[in-house]
Amino acid sequence: MNESVLIEAINEGDEFVGYYALKRCELKETDGLFRLELELSDKTGSLPAVVWNDAKELREQIEKGSVVKVKGLLGSYRDKPQVRIEKIRPAEEGEYDPDSFLKSTPKNIDDLKAQIESFIGSLSDPFIKELADSIFGKAKFMEEFTRSPGGKRWHHPYLGGLLEHTVGVTGLCDFAAGQHPELNRDLLIIAALLHDVGKIREFTVSTIIDYSDEGRLEGHIVMGERFVRNMCDRIDNFPQKTKMLLSHLILSHQGQKSFSSPVEPMIPEGFVLYYADEIDSKLNALGRISDRTADEGGTWSEYVKLLGRMIYVGGE
Amino acid sequence: MNESVLIEAINEGDEFVGYYALKRCELKETDGLFRLELELSDKTGSLPAVVWNDAKELREQIEKGSVVKVKGLLGSYRDKPQVRIEKIRPAEEGEYDPDSFLKSTPKNIDDLKAQIESFIGSLSDPFIKELADSIFGKAKFMEEFTRSPGGKRWHHPYLGGLLEHTVGVTGLCDFAAGQHPELNRDLLIIAALLHDVGKIREFTVSTIIDYSDEGRLEGHIVMGERFVRNMCDRIDNFPQKTKMLLSHLILSHQGQKSFSSPVEPMIPEGFVLYYADEIDSKLNALGRISDRTADEGGTWSEYVKLLGRMIYVGGE
Amino acid sequence: MNESVLIEAINEGDEFVGYYALKRCELKETDGLFRLELELSDKTGSLPAVVWNDAKELREQIEKGSVVKVKGLLGSYRDKPQVRIEKIRPAEEGEYDPDSFLKSTPKNIDDLKAQIESFIGSLSDPFIKELADSIFGKAKFMEEFTRSPGGKRWHHPYLGGLLEHTVGVTGLCDFAAGQHPELNRDLLIIAALLHDVGKIREFTVSTIIDYSDEGRLEGHIVMGERFVRNMCDRIDNFPQKTKMLLSHLILSHQGQKSFSSPVEPMIPEGFVLYYADEIDSKLNALGRISDRTADEGGTWSEYVKLLGRMIYVGGE
Amino acid sequence: MNESVLIEAINEGDEFVGYYALKRCELKETDGLFRLELELSDKTGSLPAVVWNDAKELREQIEKGSVVKVKGLLGSYRDKPQVRIEKIRPAEEGEYDPDSFLKSTPKNIDDLKAQIESFIGSLSDPFIKELADSIFGKAKFMEEFTRSPGGKRWHHPYLGGLLEHTVGVTGLCDFAAGQHPELNRDLLIIAALLHDVGKIREFTVSTIIDYSDEGRLEGHIVMGERFVRNMCDRIDNFPQKTKMLLSHLILSHQGQKSFSSPVEPMIPEGFVLYYADEIDSKLNALGRISDRTADEGGTWSEYVKLLGRMIYVGGE
Amino acid sequence: MNESVLIEAINEGDEFVGYYALKRCELKETDGLFRLELELSDKTGSLPAVVWNDAKELREQIEKGSVVKVKGLLGSYRDKPQVRIEKIRPAEEGEYDPDSFLKSTPKNIDDLKAQIESFIGSLSDPFIKELADSIFGKAKFMEEFTRSPGGKRWHHPYLGGLLEHTVGVTGLCDFAAGQHPELNRDLLIIAALLHDVGKIREFTVSTIIDYSDEGRLEGHIVMGERFVRNMCDRIDNFPQKTKMLLSHLILSHQGQKSFSSPVEPMIPEGFVLYYADEIDSKLNALGRISDRTADEGGTWSEYVKLLGRMIYVGGE
Amino acid sequence: MNESVLIEAINEGDEFVGYYALKRCELKETDGLFRLELELSDKTGSLPAVVWNDAKELREQIEKGSVVKVKGLLGSYRDKPQVRIEKIRPAEEGEYDPDSFLKSTPKNIDDLKAQIESFIGSLSDPFIKELADSIFGKAKFMEEFTRSPGGKRWHHPYLGGLLEHTVGVTGLCDFAAGQHPELNRDLLIIAALLHDVGKIREFTVSTIIDYSDEGRLEGHIVMGERFVRNMCDRIDNFPQKTKMLLSHLILSHQGQKSFSSPVEPMIPEGFVLYYADEIDSKLNALGRISDRTADEGGTWSEYVKLLGRMIYVGGE
Repeated sequence: MNESVLIEAINEGDEFVGYYALKRCELKETDGLFRLELELSDKTGSLPAVVWNDAKELREQIEKGSVVKVKGLLGSYRDKPQVRIEKIRPAEEGEYDPDSFLKSTPKNIDDLKAQIESFIGSLSDPFIKELADSIFGKAKFMEEFTRSPGGKRWHHPYLGGLLEHTVGVTGLCDFAAGQHPELNRDLLIIAALLHDVGKIREFTVSTIIDYSDEGRLEGHIVMGERFVRNMCDRIDNFPQKTKMLLSHLILSHQGQKSFSSPVEPMIPEGFVLYYADEIDSKLNALGRISDRTADEGGTWSEYVKLLGRMIYVGGE
Repeated sequence: MNESVLIEAINEGDEFVGYYALKRCELKETDGLFRLELELSDKTGSLPAVVWNDAKELREQIEKGSVVKVKGLLGSYRDKPQVRIEKIRPAEEGEYDPDSFLKSTPKNIDDLKAQIESFIGSLSDPFIKELADSIFGKAKFMEEFTRSPGGKRWHHPYLGGLLEHTVGVTGLCDFAAGQHPELNRDLLIIAALLHDVGKIREFTVSTIIDYSDEGRLEGHIVMGERFVRNMCDRIDNFPQKTKMLLSHLILSHQGQKSFSSPVEPMIPEGFVLYYADEIDSKLNALGRISDRTADEGGTWSEYVKLLGRMIYVGGE
Repeated sequence: MNESVLIEAINEGDEFVGYYALKRCELKETDGLFRLELELSDKTGSLPAVVWNDAKELREQIEKGSVVKVKGLLGSYRDKPQVRIEKIRPAEEGEYDPDSFLKSTPKNIDDLKAQIESFIGSLSDPFIKELADSIFGKAKFMEEFTRSPGGKRWHHPYLGGLLEHTVGVTGLCDFAAGQHPELNRDLLIIAALLHDVGKIREFTVSTIIDYSDEGRLEGHIVMGERFVRNMCDRIDNFPQKTKMLLSHLILSHQGQKSFSSPVEPMIPEGFVLYYADEIDSKLNALGRISDRTADEGGTWSEYVKLLGRMIYVGGE
Repeated sequence: MNESVLIEAINEGDEFVGYYALKRCELKETDGLFRLELELSDKTGSLPAVVWNDAKELREQIEKGSVVKVKGLLGSYRDKPQVRIEKIRPAEEGEYDPDSFLKSTPKNIDDLKAQIESFIGSLSDPFIKELADSIFGKAKFMEEFTRSPGGKRWHHPYLGGLLEHTVGVTGLCDFAAGQHPELNRDLLIIAALLHDVGKIREFTVSTIIDYSDEGRLEGHIVMGERFVRNMCDRIDNFPQKTKMLLSHLILSHQGQKSFSSPVEPMIPEGFVLYYADEIDSKLNALGRISDRTADEGGTWSEYVKLLGRMIYVGGE
Repeated sequence: MNESVLIEAINEGDEFVGYYALKRCELKETDGLFRLELELSDKTGSLPAVVWNDAKELREQIEKGSVVKVKGLLGSYRDKPQVRIEKIRPAEEGEYDPDSFLKSTPKNIDDLKAQIESFIGSLSDPFIKELADSIFGKAKFMEEFTRSPGGKRWHHPYLGGLLEHTVGVTGLCDFAAGQHPELNRDLLIIAALLHDVGKIREFTVSTIIDYSDEGRLEGHIVMGERFVRNMCDRIDNFPQKTKMLLSHLILSHQGQKSFSSPVEPMIPEGFVLYYADEIDSKLNALGRISDRTADEGGTWSEYVKLLGRMIYVGGE
Repeated sequence: MNESVLIEAINEGDEFVGYYALKRCELKETDGLFRLELELSDKTGSLPAVVWNDAKELREQIEKGSVVKVKGLLGSYRDKPQVRIEKIRPAEEGEYDPDSFLKSTPKNIDDLKAQIESFIGSLSDPFIKELADSIFGKAKFMEEFTRSPGGKRWHHPYLGGLLEHTVGVTGLCDFAAGQHPELNRDLLIIAALLHDVGKIREFTVSTIIDYSDEGRLEGHIVMGERFVRNMCDRIDNFPQKTKMLLSHLILSHQGQKSFSSPVEPMIPEGFVLYYADEIDSKLNALGRISDRTADEGGTWSEYVKLLGRMIYVGGE
């Protein structure tokens, strides 16, 4: 494997050589003239670049997610840095470290997995327990589940993000079940563990995180419910009612039709799952907004479009 | 089978005996006092009735959908007719005609089925054709599909309604595909034929039409997509992309998240299917609103909550 | 004190005598004719009644919340029970038990108070702790806080409801603070303890629970923030920033402008408080919907307007 | 002309004879049984009545707005008075006083007309002045304009209501034009005078106020703009730009598309007209809500659906 | 006529001379400094340009829609091509080909006109037929109707677009009328033919397509209805009801108040027209989005703001 | 005090020296590279500038609102002017004129103050009058009130803007109270005078206008109501009801929850205040939009996001 200058280490005026994954690779045409707009990335950041020479030819060799070898210079014009590319070519496997492109959860993966196991261990309904074992007990599944991000940009957008988020949501549900004995704890816990399982296929995770075609066209809610439903079907005598309620919880977990749930919660467990999901995902998103704002010395974040407001980080 | 006075033939003051299906059967309790609120129905109409004597005991024997034998008198107070029940008991199978309770489509069932066949015959993609055959070629499926209503109250709420509606929507899609050659006709036709197939299980159809529990908790969109997806999976080498696009079309056919679609149309065929569905279902609903209004001699319907307006029927 | 037949013990056809609080007392006039529409209540339920004789004169003696002595007969017409009043007059203090009209929280009040104390004991910021002590340490305040309902109808609508709800919300916030060390735990806990304190004055609680005029015209959010702000001002050197953030949390705790919060959460603690409040209030409301539905033998509740859906109670 | 007992003078138990206009005349059919639901009205109020005998035959002789001669008895059941009809037949012209059915504005008509004239007198643009004269100078127009209501139920729902409302709105616009010299006063005043002129035909005013068919199908905004546009076209050399801006002001005067304006205000005069219209119509509606509430001795109105809240009338 | 280099033929670095229409011509001032921002266009595309020298003087000679003679060089900076203007002056009539600036429908105009005629020929109501003849039978009208675009940017934004769109919508309505005999076919067809006729004046079409002032201030819905209404008024004895219903259909054809219709459909024909309009306009817009995306080699379009989503073009 | 070149006097290519307030001062970091984005302003305009050298060090010395001494050159690239900074340092007090940075109301301050006094003089309720005197009679308050802007950008965004706006709103309310004697004039006038008083602290006004932290976290509605409530509390025997209604009017003056009012108007005075506020603020905003558009020679403004439309300024 060859050396590669980390994105965060490149300063204005630096010449550099390295292997970068393409977060963006779009051929643009304006009145007959083609250019290739790129975004070079590794786990430490990303930089924009434009290729004007032989743009069409190059486009046939690379696409979003490709790794390229670049020799370039970080220029800057007015308020934006931009790479001037001197040489660029597709990289070949073996030349670069495939783990150098994506960030991972800051939490300890083994601890998180242990918490999943502990939740499963606490289940008392035999069918629900068997379902959990049949899913989380598979090494291949766990590998994917452990690697999957929780999102592309908004919350937990890094390797292990799905695992971290799942543990967070399940913890809250577990606490609420303790407060409210009228809740069906087993049902709530299994639904929390599996609520976002569809994200494993909603995203493609190679050198970058992106939506898959089916992720956009079907959505992780339906994809996850389909997977879980199929797993239930493989268990003899799995109770119809449990199957129906678990489907309902996964389908309704985003709480509102306008948030992509085809049905809205109609059992108390559905409300708890929805709000627990909101707490865990919002806190993760807010954490990264706060960090970024604080880094730049501000007390107020920029306007956050998804929230419709700015966030105050001057609390301490 | 015994005689039964048709609901529409009962006038105020009449004493009558008959077998009726219960559209409503609710035990109500107000401060310790129980009563059973019923709605007696056959295919010609329905009448409200209340039972005060032994309400709790009776409730244990009957429920929504049960058939009861009633001896009663149609009384009236102020502005509402109401049955005074003299005798009531659960009916036994064999005593009554099970087909006497539900209305059917006014269209000819065989004609409708022939149109379905004709649409299937026009498909050219071999996988899509095989899928259509594997579904509509099954006698048991066709029996259910032919019997299923298109809705509980709003549109095509009668036996054969799903079939009638499916033919209407597919016809419109077929015409649009002729106008717009850029559309994938085969994909659009199969999606139109199957878009509401989930309604077969969303509703329970016995002596009355009602939502099933899973119909409410999962919705016909997801239930239908699940069924179609499983049927695709049984066909060898069924193309992944076709599967994905067909799932997308069924999931997005209500056009908007707020109308229960977890994803919104992202391909042209999805827009056509959505609007074709709107045209056919709205015209059916409007037709029944118009008939009812005209029967009562009005030129304006009552306020239609689902539309947020009154309908004008004085056009001719 | 005299005997009074409990509402729940009155069956159709019973004659009864008792002391009841008026949940409703409205003089209605239609074309010159006056009648008094009443709702007689005690902690076991309520019954409607109409007075036609001397309605205007009687209205001058009684109003909503008054206690009346009634001699009546429970009649029924069609689907609704209604009291035929034979005699009615305002009751005098001493004649009746003033605690017989309102329900109380099913939880143990002392346990709940102990939990409040325990939360306060866990605070480490000296100013926040002093604030908590200065409020919850006052016997008079605690008496009102302990007696106050959490709502009029939707959630915790009974004596002690505010206390019960406050403990529930604070518990959830405490758990979330444990999961997420980046949260300012002290700030979150004090805000949770005080978020609904304005409800003490938003409602009037005598023999019935009702909104006060200022409760409607100002709302418990502003009323609560005003109270807490004034309490902060009495503490020497209370930090301006803490004051500002605590005001922000109380003002934003309903999460959205359309839910009456004049500002929306702009710090992570605000999001947690909002969702914790939703979980605790929704579960309480759902619990009572479920109980009522189950009592009547149903698996689906009636349509719940505030939620825009029915609730499924057939889960077990 | 014969005697007629005023609605407000009829008490429970009274027998009465009189001539009343029908505010409602609906043939209802439930399972083959017909009844005619009526609402008898004069300017002092209205009372419901139901006719069971020969309902269909009677319906062919009378309709909404017809005047009938009734011999009846005011009965009452539970909480609602209802007329028991002993005799009923269509009345003939000459038998009754045609002015006895509709209320009029409490303001002095001549004063209001003088204010209209005074506004017209203050116009300085010759074309706008000519337009005003050509409309308000016609006796036939003024008769209709003076008689027209401002609404069916919500605001100014009585004879002269349109005139009263027009004067109110124009007065506010005039004041605002004085405050803000950048406004085109002439344009604003003529638009205010004519903004609701379409209501003359949106409503039918005979013995009752009702929507006309075209009123519902086209709306007073378009109907009014059409009338004014045609009047402009009759004036030689009427400036195109003035015509366009006046059309814009009439079309946009309800301020928002969701309030039926096909375009929203795009000139400052449009904003003033919209808000002035809101102030005058809301105050009129609130005035009647307050009066009704105060009459019944309340400090809070019933829930006002159009406003989504209750109104406080305990201010004094 | 002189030569002109087509926009699509200009590559980066090329010097060129030509005649171009100005799609944009805005004098911008920032702190006292003026510049003229231009967009040069012909039917093959457009290019941005900025003029710094004598910007104010030049602005007095040219405006949006003017044709200019330009000598320039296509430069590029970073990600955007931009013309460096060496010489620029207003062009004079006769120097250039006035048909070189705007695109036309890809369909055959004569075929489209024949379809219009065929629809008119199929009408059976004599008044509706006379109305159609009196409008479409005028050569001057047909010239304008044939030339008018269907929109500025979103759908059918080219010469003949209105004609093409009208044929598409009428075809769908015709088919639906065949499916549903309860529809008034003549009324629906004439409304479809005329639904967007107001667009003839909503847009100005010279060398570019733009909104007219009255187009923005009044909207094509009201403008079209006004034109049709006036044409009806010229026909002796044209039935009032037909006039009213036709006005209703044109006014309500955008289906919802928020889409600028002052009234919403209240007759079945109105629903069909609305959805047919949606199908035809959406398919046209999607077609151009798909083409653009495919040209650039993508499977997903950019985010389409008006739809709130991306479009998938990877279907084949 | 030293000379300073006014922003409006700087032309492209000019070298200049001056003292400017920073409207923006943001340290941006992209992949390790820091730059400082500035906006230099005085009362005649503002210009963007970027500092690349020693950005972090400089940021520690200056912040938004700081005054800097700059030696620069106005460059331009493509379509945007931008200052090239040659020298920059924090300015020291005494070097510059502190009144040179912010615009003031174009109205005469003394006239405006006289109008306030005249409104106060017209009050007849002794408590309301005392309240007005206790607030507006304080020199320190009047100084702040007179200096405060009415907004940051949208309406009255200049010194004295609050005063000007208050006079405008109160004038309209006064007129409406004259038209409608049922309004409580004193209550309405005092509420109008104080409705936006919270803006004094919502904004910080030094060399620039900005939101304060508490302005964003609490909002001027609650801040203003708190101030007024405290002032009421200082007056002996101030009637509870007046206090409650005045709080209600201030809290509800933005008319809708979605516009940040925690309660919506429930008394007629609240509706008048809301619409009067809308008229005065909208006209001010529109005035500045119109001026800017006319300056650039346009008849249509750019798209105004807050209104969702363009504004027409071609009326004359």
